[in-house]
Amino acid sequence: MLETVLSATRHRPIADGVAIADRGRAAAPAAAWPHRHLLDVDQLTRPELERCLELAVEMRERRARREPQNLLAGEVVGLAFCEPSTRTRVSFELAAEALGAQVVELPIDVSSVTKGETLVDTLRTLERTGVTTVILRHAMSGAPYLAARSVAIRIVNAGDGLHAHPTQALLDAMTLRDALGALDGKKIAIVGDIAHSRVARSNLHVLTALGADVWLAGPPAWVRGFDRWPGVRVAHRVEEALTDADAVMTLRVQLERDAGGGVPSLREYTTRWGLDAARLGLARAQAPVLHPGPTNEGVEITAELAAGERSLIGAQVVNGVAMRMAVLALLAA
Amino acid sequence: MLETVLSATRHRPIADGVAIADRGRAAAPAAAWPHRHLLDVDQLTRPELERCLELAVEMRERRARREPQNLLAGEVVGLAFCEPSTRTRVSFELAAEALGAQVVELPIDVSSVTKGETLVDTLRTLERTGVTTVILRHAMSGAPYLAARSVAIRIVNAGDGLHAHPTQALLDAMTLRDALGALDGKKIAIVGDIAHSRVARSNLHVLTALGADVWLAGPPAWVRGFDRWPGVRVAHRVEEALTDADAVMTLRVQLERDAGGGVPSLREYTTRWGLDAARLGLARAQAPVLHPGPTNEGVEITAELAAGERSLIGAQVVNGVAMRMAVLALLAA
Amino acid sequence: MLETVLSATRHRPIADGVAIADRGRAAAPAAAWPHRHLLDVDQLTRPELERCLELAVEMRERRARREPQNLLAGEVVGLAFCEPSTRTRVSFELAAEALGAQVVELPIDVSSVTKGETLVDTLRTLERTGVTTVILRHAMSGAPYLAARSVAIRIVNAGDGLHAHPTQALLDAMTLRDALGALDGKKIAIVGDIAHSRVARSNLHVLTALGADVWLAGPPAWVRGFDRWPGVRVAHRVEEALTDADAVMTLRVQLERDAGGGVPSLREYTTRWGLDAARLGLARAQAPVLHPGPTNEGVEITAELAAGERSLIGAQVVNGVAMRMAVLALLAA
Repeated sequence: MLETVLSATRHRPIADGVAIADRGRAAAPAAAWPHRHLLDVDQLTRPELERCLELAVEMRERRARREPQNLLAGEVVGLAFCEPSTRTRVSFELAAEALGAQVVELPIDVSSVTKGETLVDTLRTLERTGVTTVILRHAMSGAPYLAARSVAIRIVNAGDGLHAHPTQALLDAMTLRDALGALDGKKIAIVGDIAHSRVARSNLHVLTALGADVWLAGPPAWVRGFDRWPGVRVAHRVEEALTDADAVMTLRVQLERDAGGGVPSLREYTTRWGLDAARLGLARAQAPVLHPGPTNEGVEITAELAAGERSLIGAQVVNGVAMRMAVLALLAA
Repeated sequence: MLETVLSATRHRPIADGVAIADRGRAAAPAAAWPHRHLLDVDQLTRPELERCLELAVEMRERRARREPQNLLAGEVVGLAFCEPSTRTRVSFELAAEALGAQVVELPIDVSSVTKGETLVDTLRTLERTGVTTVILRHAMSGAPYLAARSVAIRIVNAGDGLHAHPTQALLDAMTLRDALGALDGKKIAIVGDIAHSRVARSNLHVLTALGADVWLAGPPAWVRGFDRWPGVRVAHRVEEALTDADAVMTLRVQLERDAGGGVPSLREYTTRWGLDAARLGLARAQAPVLHPGPTNEGVEITAELAAGERSLIGAQVVNGVAMRMAVLALLAA
Repeated sequence: MLETVLSATRHRPIADGVAIADRGRAAAPAAAWPHRHLLDVDQLTRPELERCLELAVEMRERRARREPQNLLAGEVVGLAFCEPSTRTRVSFELAAEALGAQVVELPIDVSSVTKGETLVDTLRTLERTGVTTVILRHAMSGAPYLAARSVAIRIVNAGDGLHAHPTQALLDAMTLRDALGALDGKKIAIVGDIAHSRVARSNLHVLTALGADVWLAGPPAWVRGFDRWPGVRVAHRVEEALTDADAVMTLRVQLERDAGGGVPSLREYTTRWGLDAARLGLARAQAPVLHPGPTNEGVEITAELAAGERSLIGAQVVNGVAMRMAVLALLAA
């Protein structure tokens, strides 16, 4: 899976170059959006990424002013979360309703699947009922692609297995741009389990496409091989990644996952890769800290840093609703 | 239970004859609807059935034009699904919201019932909160009747045990009329487990009331005794039912149910009663195929037929929302 | 826990006396409401309690007239029920939507908590998404206080462990006032398991604050110590509590709880403390009967009384929606 994703990506910059020429004004609000689905960020050109970011800022401002927006009036957005989630599900629900869509909960995991109906059959049925967009979180990497090939419903990937979490990466980029301005040439450190993180993988795409220099750090089994990705470097020690970093993103250590296979204990992880004030001191002054949440405070990040002045964790959540509004609005454009 | 249903039904045509004289213009949109609840289709006269069918067509057209309809403004529709369901629950939810009702999910199965509160107690409570209509799916045959006797809330049966599934039969009739026009004298084959199918039982009522000749086929234990039903014949072999049929409806084989008692294995079922292109060739040219879904492709129907040109499975789902809108609108009239 | 609650309460009347002077016109509709949260009724002065009661009556009337009310337009109310509930959850949902709020279900128990995210972390996240009010039912006594200290979101306690259920007590007082007028000097009997009932504890606060004389009856282990509460007396026999009572409230016997420790069997409970027509005959003519529901008919109350003319159980549910509308409106004022 990883190899496939990597090889697909290595050739992307060239396509992007072409795309930039073709769609020079793609960020203009009135232009059509060329994608029916949001399956992963690797489908988006740099101008398209920038259009998402700009529209999300606008959505955030309009929402703060409580301006009514009915871009999705008459649309039915179905939430199909096959894994538990509070923040992502609520964020999409609020985003869809803020745009005037009708939202229905689709109990895909607990209903017809138990009768042997497949995901695709269920989506075909939903399509006929009038559902126009499905927000899909699925345990199986690639499930949104299968869905998108099978139905005319718009599919938004809200996290598929170990593969991708595109709206998370987009909101992370939005949050970084709020703090740092343009990301070209900025050093962004990502610390943790890159190999098993769909958040990290989608972030690598977005950050390198926006011109950032991404440094990865973590236990070798969790970062190995990612230096083949253009614009990405793997640090030998966490300090190397953090030194002079413009921003630091820590990832959740999956406590549920059994250790083993070269993976450290929690205590060892915290000692060697956990983010604390001393380590953050290596980064640039005021370099902000991000985390996709929920945090394991005291494991990958200290409670002080997570709640401190330089933490953008709250801003990430605020931006999450705005970015999901932007994505839904673009897909419906 | 079967005996009770059958004996209640054998005398229905007489009552219907009287009813036709009395309510000659019952199908007119402005007329009052004489029923508070929809418990089963056997409560409906032929003019009432036709009124449902006509109003559903109108609802489908209005929904396609996205015409706002507020026939249920101020109403609160509660969804009480005591068994899993995607298509029926979502269909009712969209129908109620399309008519301007407020929809609340009623977790009857997982909440107060666990504290010993009975269905009736819960409904009495909901009535006081302002819920005006409950869409009830219940594992116990007859539960909607118990509910309707106990509360003034309108009850819509969304499937009760092995007994009835009235909106499914109505949407099936709507779909057949779209394809065939008037059903008088039309030969409709239903293949599968009639004895344990609430869908089939409600379909027998509607189709015979609309003048169709219904032929049943399936393992003997699943069709036995239904030839006592007026307008219904049981075929000895599936081919007899299919020959010159105007339409074919296959039913879901309940994979969950253990075989035994004269019931065949899945493989034997497919060999002897499964619908494939060769068997469908016995029916009239272009005879359509229906299935209430979800299908077990390769068991009761081939994947090719289920997805083919003559399949009305998708149309059944589209019509489902429109028919549920019609039913909700009539009950509130 | 009980001791803490009691000691906190013993000193309350003094504070109330001051408060009455300070906020003499607090009941006027236009006045600001001084509380951000509703954690328990012991935070409310008598004028504030009366303002709740008056506004709830007004809300009931407006709802009966189907008058649109948009006091919560633009607000997002999250329902976080960590324990099963039909009547309270639906009641809050209808109340919030009747005031024009957007309602989202927050699956706190089944989602991020399973990833180790704490209640507080989840609430902090929800705050960032734009949720403005959380209706919280939690198994842990005191959880709403923890929540209120941690986030700026308004918290409404919908029942926390054995501690408090403030909206239930407010709707009970509303129902009693409908039937009896002012409660000053009225004798109200409460029969059952006071010690383990958050409903009873919140009722003691409200009823004594409104000037009622509260008499408690039940197995000694369930009523012991409550006579230290100002305005509350513990009867030796149930007949003593019922004689000349102006109203009788029976509580649900928790069938789930194992007997033992001086607690009687169900049969013994019914024989000695169950409410039947003979015992109710000791109360004043037409004294009404209340029960927070769901009832165990034949245990703490006979089916005849629960469904009879003097039962206000249905009125309690009707008033529940109105009172929750009043509370939500006041907190947002």
